[in-house]
Amino acid sequence: MNPIVFEKTKQAAAILKEKGIDLWLTFVRETSSGGDPVLPLIYGDADLTWQSALILTSSGDRIAIVGRFEADAAQKIGAYAEVIAYDESIRPALLDVLKKVDPKTIAINTSKNDVLADGLSHGLYQLLGDMLAGTPYSDRLTSAEAVISALRGRKTATELQCIRAAVEETEQIYAKAYDFLAPGKTEIDVHLFMQGLVRERGLELAWTPSGCPIVNTGPESPVGHGEPTDLKIERGHLVHFDFGVLKDGYCSDIQHMVYMLRPGETQAPPEVQRGFDAVLQGVQASFAAIRTGVTGKEVDAAARSVVTGAGYEEFKHATGHQLGRLAHDGGGILGPKWDRYGELPDLPLEVGQVYTIEPSLQVPGYGQVGLEEDIVVTEDGAEYLSTPQTELFLR
Amino acid sequence: MNPIVFEKTKQAAAILKEKGIDLWLTFVRETSSGGDPVLPLIYGDADLTWQSALILTSSGDRIAIVGRFEADAAQKIGAYAEVIAYDESIRPALLDVLKKVDPKTIAINTSKNDVLADGLSHGLYQLLGDMLAGTPYSDRLTSAEAVISALRGRKTATELQCIRAAVEETEQIYAKAYDFLAPGKTEIDVHLFMQGLVRERGLELAWTPSGCPIVNTGPESPVGHGEPTDLKIERGHLVHFDFGVLKDGYCSDIQHMVYMLRPGETQAPPEVQRGFDAVLQGVQASFAAIRTGVTGKEVDAAARSVVTGAGYEEFKHATGHQLGRLAHDGGGILGPKWDRYGELPDLPLEVGQVYTIEPSLQVPGYGQVGLEEDIVVTEDGAEYLSTPQTELFLR
Repeated sequence: MNPIVFEKTKQAAAILKEKGIDLWLTFVRETSSGGDPVLPLIYGDADLTWQSALILTSSGDRIAIVGRFEADAAQKIGAYAEVIAYDESIRPALLDVLKKVDPKTIAINTSKNDVLADGLSHGLYQLLGDMLAGTPYSDRLTSAEAVISALRGRKTATELQCIRAAVEETEQIYAKAYDFLAPGKTEIDVHLFMQGLVRERGLELAWTPSGCPIVNTGPESPVGHGEPTDLKIERGHLVHFDFGVLKDGYCSDIQHMVYMLRPGETQAPPEVQRGFDAVLQGVQASFAAIRTGVTGKEVDAAARSVVTGAGYEEFKHATGHQLGRLAHDGGGILGPKWDRYGELPDLPLEVGQVYTIEPSLQVPGYGQVGLEEDIVVTEDGAEYLSTPQTELFLR
Repeated sequence: MNPIVFEKTKQAAAILKEKGIDLWLTFVRETSSGGDPVLPLIYGDADLTWQSALILTSSGDRIAIVGRFEADAAQKIGAYAEVIAYDESIRPALLDVLKKVDPKTIAINTSKNDVLADGLSHGLYQLLGDMLAGTPYSDRLTSAEAVISALRGRKTATELQCIRAAVEETEQIYAKAYDFLAPGKTEIDVHLFMQGLVRERGLELAWTPSGCPIVNTGPESPVGHGEPTDLKIERGHLVHFDFGVLKDGYCSDIQHMVYMLRPGETQAPPEVQRGFDAVLQGVQASFAAIRTGVTGKEVDAAARSVVTGAGYEEFKHATGHQLGRLAHDGGGILGPKWDRYGELPDLPLEVGQVYTIEPSLQVPGYGQVGLEEDIVVTEDGAEYLSTPQTELFLR
């Protein structure tokens, strides 16, 4: 049994009811050549080769119609109460289920806005249209965008466990990376060292390898540029990391800060400490602002105003994004109402959503400061999934 | 520069002319969350995040319209003579290119039949419709199915090099596997040993790990069942392998045979040898039947009639399939006119296509015999990419 798929397919019924959708149809074929992005949530890793229909309804039906040779695999997932095997054409079984459920609305995986809810290819959409032609169901199709966004965002117990496990691995790798730091080593050296630890542990990187981890040393390191350079670590540098791993299908995404003490220093210079404190207070302000129903832009404003209020330039990115199967997991964000974020900052926070909180600023002459923590929205606020960095690490 | 993408985008012009298509438009977004299966051929591994258009024309134009931040990466691929960067909306640049080329036909990646030519999602199809609304181009859309099938099938020099390299690795792993065979070891032992060698060499498996390699020992091993069992190798068994690796994006797919000598035997028993010879002659008959313009069903019949003519039961699968980025690479097959193969056995062979040839039969009391070689169609026949197994290996 796949516990995540079991939990997510159960969770779908309430979401369908909430969104006013009677039946949700995920229609796929030959998924080994590129499947629907929703499959890991509602079916798992197994391939679906012939045309297959995964049907979830607001009254809790969980029905899979699959090719004969994949019926056993579908049963083993343990999430579908009914597995219907077919030999020649999926159409009779599909129409049969639709007749029994008689849904007023049928949600399909198509969306102009959200790539994660747009897994139905145009050819398959046409095939589905052919199959439904002459039935009352062809006029009842609608987009599953809101359903998929809610299902993806509201993490189950097992999903949270997976993210916690990814966070723990990340923190263990971070601990080794601090001891690896030394003057003369380059950003690329540190980047490759950390990637080696990821491989040793049988993990994958949470995003594109060329920028995972990001390592920035000192004031010359380009801001917002993902790829590490051959700039050398020097005493008196701030070293900034942005790093995450993928473990059992779920990601972490954490930023940490180290200061390289100069001879005679036992702590960071005051202006460095002041920058670190402003970012830390920004994280804490956003964390404190989180509760269900609050919008992303309100949470964003909390960290943003701390940083600008301390006299630093406003950071040019959102305060946070959702985290899950992807490091940037789609849906609502903790961001300002800038054009490029569209309506996403207006969405209210929901219990079970996992967000990053990651304000940042520049300390002239020393480098950039960015902290990033991972949190989950709870019934009465938020809980840290990562161990917050509350003091500047000194090396 | 990506040599494969360079070659394939060049090759596209002649194919477009041949198929009567003026312009081929691959329209994608956020490909890191699941891209179009044609991208590895015409763009490579780099992500395309904002809506992006890859445009190839029958007169040889190669134009990429991509988001500002990915324009450098698009340039570096070295295959697009013109890279147009946009900031806010792709629509003006897209319409501008269409006006300049003024195509009578615009092929898009949508297909009811072929999943490898159906990479356009329905949401993106709708967005494209919105963009073209009110222009003469909205009525000129057609399917790129025939273009993609030809482009995928006709391998370039670099693609053939990649397949040869995958074949060579496979043969080296096979050589070690023969020496690993011993009475008492199970099918699973051999399977895991070979997978270990794949990992050691930094390769990937050519298909689903649970059945790569397939290992069958003796007469009790289930035929056509992909997963190895805990059946033990015994003296007097035929051991059958089906195995391939993925190297630099291209696959091999090879079947080999070993006979486990009983005490006192210096060669296989006559009925085993007779079965091996029939399969070998089947491979050679199909190989000899290959030339451009011949249909897949004719090549299939050559091997099939050798096996049935020798008195064995007819094998219940096609004699061969195309091989490339996938072990089963789509397009025409070397198969009989059975319903489940549709029109695919009627397609004529083309220069540069890579096929497997893999007849099989059962030797009662000893096990199954299957050989599989990889070949490329040439101007005047065919050439082996694998080293044909012409004698039963004895251990």
